Amino acid sequence: MPVLVMKFGGTSVATLDRIRRAAKRVGVEVAKGYDVIVIVSAMSGETNKLVGFVGETSPLYDAREYDAVVSSGENVTAGLMALTLQEMDVPARSWQGWQVPLKTTSAHSAARIEEIPTDNINAKFADGMRVAVVAGFQGISPEGRITTLGRGGSDTTAVAFAAAFDAERCDIYTDVDGVYTTDPRIADKARKLDRIAFEEMLELASLGAKVLQTRSVELAMRYNVKLRVLSSFEEQSDDAGTLVCAEEEIVESNVVNGIAYSRDEAKMTLISVADRPGIAAAIFGPLSDAGVNVDMIIQNISEEGRTDMTFSCPTDQVARAEKALAEAKERGEINYHDLVADTNVAKVSAVGIGMRSQSGVAAKMFKTLSDEGVNIKVIATSEIKISVLIDRKYMELAVQSLHDAFELDKTA
Amino acid sequence: MPVLVMKFGGTSVATLDRIRRAAKRVGVEVAKGYDVIVIVSAMSGETNKLVGFVGETSPLYDAREYDAVVSSGENVTAGLMALTLQEMDVPARSWQGWQVPLKTTSAHSAARIEEIPTDNINAKFADGMRVAVVAGFQGISPEGRITTLGRGGSDTTAVAFAAAFDAERCDIYTDVDGVYTTDPRIADKARKLDRIAFEEMLELASLGAKVLQTRSVELAMRYNVKLRVLSSFEEQSDDAGTLVCAEEEIVESNVVNGIAYSRDEAKMTLISVADRPGIAAAIFGPLSDAGVNVDMIIQNISEEGRTDMTFSCPTDQVARAEKALAEAKERGEINYHDLVADTNVAKVSAVGIGMRSQSGVAAKMFKTLSDEGVNIKVIATSEIKISVLIDRKYMELAVQSLHDAFELDKTA
Repeated sequence: MPVLVMKFGGTSVATLDRIRRAAKRVGVEVAKGYDVIVIVSAMSGETNKLVGFVGETSPLYDAREYDAVVSSGENVTAGLMALTLQEMDVPARSWQGWQVPLKTTSAHSAARIEEIPTDNINAKFADGMRVAVVAGFQGISPEGRITTLGRGGSDTTAVAFAAAFDAERCDIYTDVDGVYTTDPRIADKARKLDRIAFEEMLELASLGAKVLQTRSVELAMRYNVKLRVLSSFEEQSDDAGTLVCAEEEIVESNVVNGIAYSRDEAKMTLISVADRPGIAAAIFGPLSDAGVNVDMIIQNISEEGRTDMTFSCPTDQVARAEKALAEAKERGEINYHDLVADTNVAKVSAVGIGMRSQSGVAAKMFKTLSDEGVNIKVIATSEIKISVLIDRKYMELAVQSLHDAFELDKTA
Repeated sequence: MPVLVMKFGGTSVATLDRIRRAAKRVGVEVAKGYDVIVIVSAMSGETNKLVGFVGETSPLYDAREYDAVVSSGENVTAGLMALTLQEMDVPARSWQGWQVPLKTTSAHSAARIEEIPTDNINAKFADGMRVAVVAGFQGISPEGRITTLGRGGSDTTAVAFAAAFDAERCDIYTDVDGVYTTDPRIADKARKLDRIAFEEMLELASLGAKVLQTRSVELAMRYNVKLRVLSSFEEQSDDAGTLVCAEEEIVESNVVNGIAYSRDEAKMTLISVADRPGIAAAIFGPLSDAGVNVDMIIQNISEEGRTDMTFSCPTDQVARAEKALAEAKERGEINYHDLVADTNVAKVSAVGIGMRSQSGVAAKMFKTLSDEGVNIKVIATSEIKISVLIDRKYMELAVQSLHDAFELDKTA
């Protein structure tokens, strides 16, 4: 029988009633003839509670014990989901990560999936079991310790199971009903997309859209797993939600398919850096070593051997960046007058695979913002994305006017 | 290094502060030179919450899923205890049942321990680890599913580890500071015993004393594991609490060492039973099949081929007993006029290994009760115990007067 993977996030299993509701959705797919693998998160709030316990117990905790503690919420939901399905006369059983076994690296709290053997679960499917309920977010290391995949890891678990079992589709049930052209809370013309390409979803996810975890999209793209994002709180038709799929499966597409934003970017400017060949490496090497995720970079024209260097990074990494650069200065590796952090900025991005073949997107974006009197501080582009850093107070205006300019409220 | 097993119950690990307090006790034993195996229960209230979830989800639940759900509380405490010890610079790690692996039968929710391999944990001790923190109450079945040992199973886990690792002692930390001659809430002259024999503890446990789970005492007796019961809420000296040990290690002992009571007994009387050879089997066979734990039995003298048959059983099994007997009557296997259940009774017992060698204990007990005007309804005796069923209103009086009569407030 064809296999379907269905993933339910924390809000979708937050109470026994919601678990029942989710189980009914599973029952619908079983009735259609699918063997279903259900991936569950912990009841919402549970994982945070456990993370709090660990943090309070030990500020510099042993990540192996952290994983053993925080993975327990998913075990509870997996068992309860299996019981709920059994109550509905759907043959089901639960699997914890080590029982599958979902094999991962030993990088505790941020482990990567290495292998998912299918024989164990397939044997049960062959025996008449119709639903395997798997605790998301967790696995087992080569040393036999429990690992977790990091926050949002249940999405990744779901996609990895879909790839391993060659599933027809991986449905991600969440508290929104799909992927939108932009955040509907900011632009009321925001439109739900029926389909979106992996590449676009990947950019949107890393640019601040919270629907799917970046790693899960990467994995789906690599193994060409059809991902569907849909709401667990609404009655669902067969084409509900948004399908994240390969470019080839999207017949018509707008040039720009999404406007993303992020408030969590800071603009850092090194003033009057002594310029010399290799100065970029001298600056960004220590930042990288300190775990600072530098996003955009611009360098002013050098005058009299000195230049200004501007880059952006997540606001919560500003302190770390300042420390790394001050230390590099102390070691004499770089020389600058001042370091100015501006956390009063926002990043707004336009994303669309259509950009590859169509020119003029950047020009249109800059003109739109200019017409609204929005000053662009930093620009960064990729093949299918243009991002700008602007004053935070203009963020909503920028999102709305770009959404209008690229006519995202209209289908292609 | 010698091994010590220390078990902390739910109230002893109810909060992060209490876990820290328990960890400090562990640290004291490590400093003495012991390698320590710590067995932890779930934070108090957690297991009940999970049991509630399961019951609400599925009244006739799959015990395998029940076990997967309710075992998760211990995993949390085990991880937190290991982290707390690490914070105190005590090398420690956690083990879940399947990681040991603690092998059990497949009797889910009431599994029996089959084997505890020691190589895994001993290798870590040899490596310098000083404390193995093991999640109590849980194991793994031959099928690779999670099992639980039934309520109070963490005591059993602790004793089984002590036996497997040939531990010097198994310390059970709880919310009382030892085993008392009787319940101090009823008799203020109750005295904490320094030592008590396995057999006595076993009788007291099964007669209603809630300090230790019966199975754990049985296991300790079989493998001659020295069990110490002590409070996790008090500073402890080396001879704190009560040592449960073999008879040979108790030099002087009173004839009677404990007075136990239980409010949970009901007296059932079958009135005017048609007497014939085999009638006892015809009555108690169906009761046993229905899972009714019959404790005491008395049969009146038969008159004109009819007799009254009285027995006691736990009050919560009365309905089941009535149903089983009514059905047996319907099938024509037994014949009686009426069945009267009296739940307004209590069982009071005197326990002591000294009874084996000393006569007159029963006579003294009956006289004491008679002097107080307490009418005895049913009597049952074993080698080291005498139990009587009396009106519940006399229970406290009976306990106090027996405690005085056998001079339990004085040491031998």
